[in-house]
Amino acid sequence: MLANTDLQLPGTITVNRERLIERHRILSMIGATDRGGVDRQAMTPADAESHRLLITWARAKGWPVSADPAGNLFVTRPGTDPSLAPVATGSHLDSQPTGGRFDGALGVLAGLEALEAIDDAGIVTRRPLQLIVWMNEEGCRFSPTTMGSGVFAGLLPLEPLRQVTDAHGVRLGDALDAFFPSIDILPGPVPPRPAAYVEAHIEQGPILEANGEVIGVVSGVQGLRQFRLTLSGETAHAGTTPRALRRDAFAAMLRIATELNSAMADADDVVRFTIGQCTVAPGVPNTVAASASFTIDLRHPEAAVLDRLEAAIEEVCARLAPPCDVTLERLIASPPVTFDTAIIRAVHDAAMRRGHAARIMMSGAAHDAANLAQVCPSGMIFIPCRGGISHREDEHAEDAHMVAATEVLCDVLLHLAGRETNIAGKV
Amino acid sequence: MLANTDLQLPGTITVNRERLIERHRILSMIGATDRGGVDRQAMTPADAESHRLLITWARAKGWPVSADPAGNLFVTRPGTDPSLAPVATGSHLDSQPTGGRFDGALGVLAGLEALEAIDDAGIVTRRPLQLIVWMNEEGCRFSPTTMGSGVFAGLLPLEPLRQVTDAHGVRLGDALDAFFPSIDILPGPVPPRPAAYVEAHIEQGPILEANGEVIGVVSGVQGLRQFRLTLSGETAHAGTTPRALRRDAFAAMLRIATELNSAMADADDVVRFTIGQCTVAPGVPNTVAASASFTIDLRHPEAAVLDRLEAAIEEVCARLAPPCDVTLERLIASPPVTFDTAIIRAVHDAAMRRGHAARIMMSGAAHDAANLAQVCPSGMIFIPCRGGISHREDEHAEDAHMVAATEVLCDVLLHLAGRETNIAGKV
Repeated sequence: MLANTDLQLPGTITVNRERLIERHRILSMIGATDRGGVDRQAMTPADAESHRLLITWARAKGWPVSADPAGNLFVTRPGTDPSLAPVATGSHLDSQPTGGRFDGALGVLAGLEALEAIDDAGIVTRRPLQLIVWMNEEGCRFSPTTMGSGVFAGLLPLEPLRQVTDAHGVRLGDALDAFFPSIDILPGPVPPRPAAYVEAHIEQGPILEANGEVIGVVSGVQGLRQFRLTLSGETAHAGTTPRALRRDAFAAMLRIATELNSAMADADDVVRFTIGQCTVAPGVPNTVAASASFTIDLRHPEAAVLDRLEAAIEEVCARLAPPCDVTLERLIASPPVTFDTAIIRAVHDAAMRRGHAARIMMSGAAHDAANLAQVCPSGMIFIPCRGGISHREDEHAEDAHMVAATEVLCDVLLHLAGRETNIAGKV
Repeated sequence: MLANTDLQLPGTITVNRERLIERHRILSMIGATDRGGVDRQAMTPADAESHRLLITWARAKGWPVSADPAGNLFVTRPGTDPSLAPVATGSHLDSQPTGGRFDGALGVLAGLEALEAIDDAGIVTRRPLQLIVWMNEEGCRFSPTTMGSGVFAGLLPLEPLRQVTDAHGVRLGDALDAFFPSIDILPGPVPPRPAAYVEAHIEQGPILEANGEVIGVVSGVQGLRQFRLTLSGETAHAGTTPRALRRDAFAAMLRIATELNSAMADADDVVRFTIGQCTVAPGVPNTVAASASFTIDLRHPEAAVLDRLEAAIEEVCARLAPPCDVTLERLIASPPVTFDTAIIRAVHDAAMRRGHAARIMMSGAAHDAANLAQVCPSGMIFIPCRGGISHREDEHAEDAHMVAATEVLCDVLLHLAGRETNIAGKV
């Protein structure tokens, strides 16, 4: 439990629950699938339509909207000191092909509602408040994930990404060039880095729900390493070749995967170890496998632990592969991210003051906020999703939890942006 | 070790080594692949050409050649008593798409050479001697395997098989109807069942070579059961879902396959347990598998042992699948075959008298002889193949071993057919 900060008492700001939920209902119609989900893959007509809807809502408030060359969208509510960098929030509107209605959408709508609720309360901030819609967070149509925020944070160069093609051979650059006219905004210069960034998101895991908690105070994003392990043996006739004379690639895979499954188990269930892909060749029932290949997805909040586990994988491979040969290839090495301590405390305190049961937790999934953490103090606010399910059409979050995330976001943004005055004199 | 039988001393019959090896060289040119193997899939032009070559050699001896409606080819060297059923030998000329030069070819050429060597020695037998080329033993173009002998033995009905199609949609019936004109022989009635059947074949396993033995005295064909095991769990995000809350189909597969791998291990290495095919869905590195499926190929000489092992598979599935669901489907159940004791003894004695190191062994692979065993006393003669490798272009057997198989086959055929007289008076 963190000590309370000097967070300003924000109890007077009321989130407009009906507006938030109604907007979510309308947004969910765009790219709606038959089974209750959405298909708004990045830069598709549905994605553009969802952007146009957001632009309409922002312009109704008179807030300027701009885009950068990576397709990120910026809605800015000015502060009193134009020389100061904005305090930003946001998320993404794109989805998986059979995605849910909350992943990304929550963060965008909570951000918009937070800005409006602050506006409704007549509060003016010193720093501008900014809502950012990151382009192509999902990375399912165009690889990689968290593309827009990666480019914004200077972690990915845009030019080579424009050559990436989707499954139909469409270049990302061409899709992006068509996207801007479709939202009636041409790309301008990249806005200055925010002073801080806070993103609301569904947990995409089962922990909050399982513990009956409403707010996840996200302390960071765990590190990820992905590997491909390939075993090479020799085909043999299943009926004629005794076990002792086989070089069975499947059997070697079985030994290694089973040993790793045990070696990676920790008492606290913090290590995330997943074998999600596996192929065997020639893949014939009556033939001993000549080769077997599988992926390892390994995550942990601490880089030192990932180093140790990677060494263990190497040791197990060398020990248990024979008589087969083994190659271990590292596909991804994404270091753990630690969010800003002051923002973690602000999120925690806001949840406490709003009366929401909260838990400090790591994010298991990647997020735009992890990229932003490289360039400014950042943090995240999680809410539960039913059964921990995400990236599926039956993804679900409760209205009350969406409101709770928005309340906490409101308070944290206001704290970070500095409350200058109350126009309407309500406070 | 079996006691010697009253096998007639056959030392005077000399196999023509040069003729055998030269014919094998010529036959291997038909359907030859770049990498030293052959592609003579059943009823293809290459298969027909190999049949025409054999027919040419048989007719040069004046021996009648006929075919039955299943495409099996019969070459008959008459005996002195036309009322007696023939003693038959044979194998197949069709191959896998990237098959070797010995699988099938050895049995056909050894059979032809045995008949000719007996003829060269001026020996007349009471029973006719018959060489049979079974159609579609491999079953790779048209399923199932050992088709021609299966139909001949009354184990498979021909008419429904004619509707089976290959990968290009060609009906087996149409391929067969085109095959007969291509070998210039129209199908006649099915010949009478042989009085006995003996087939020479490469071992297709490593046992003879590993033990420095030349002749495998085949006592039977082990039983085969094939299963497909399917596990159903639930997808989950690899980064967010703790192990305790997963229903990971891959992890369940790992538990079951590892337990079975141990449970099926026997001290004598007689049980053949192979997992050769394995698929995981959705098969994405960062997603916990919702389903996993694998095949089990299980073989043993004794039906009772197969029953016990199948029960063990059911028990392990039920015990280790949860929290996933499991279905176990039996794909194949082929009972063990025991060859005729008198033929086993005759093969063994012939090997001893010819001075060839021999071993009594089961066949791990299926063979036409296993079908024939259902209708007449049958047996097989194995020789080593390099590294136990078969169904591959680098399949290899030694010339000396091909000769040895032919010598043993000669002696056994003569013993079974009854030596009537020596025309040339050489004996």
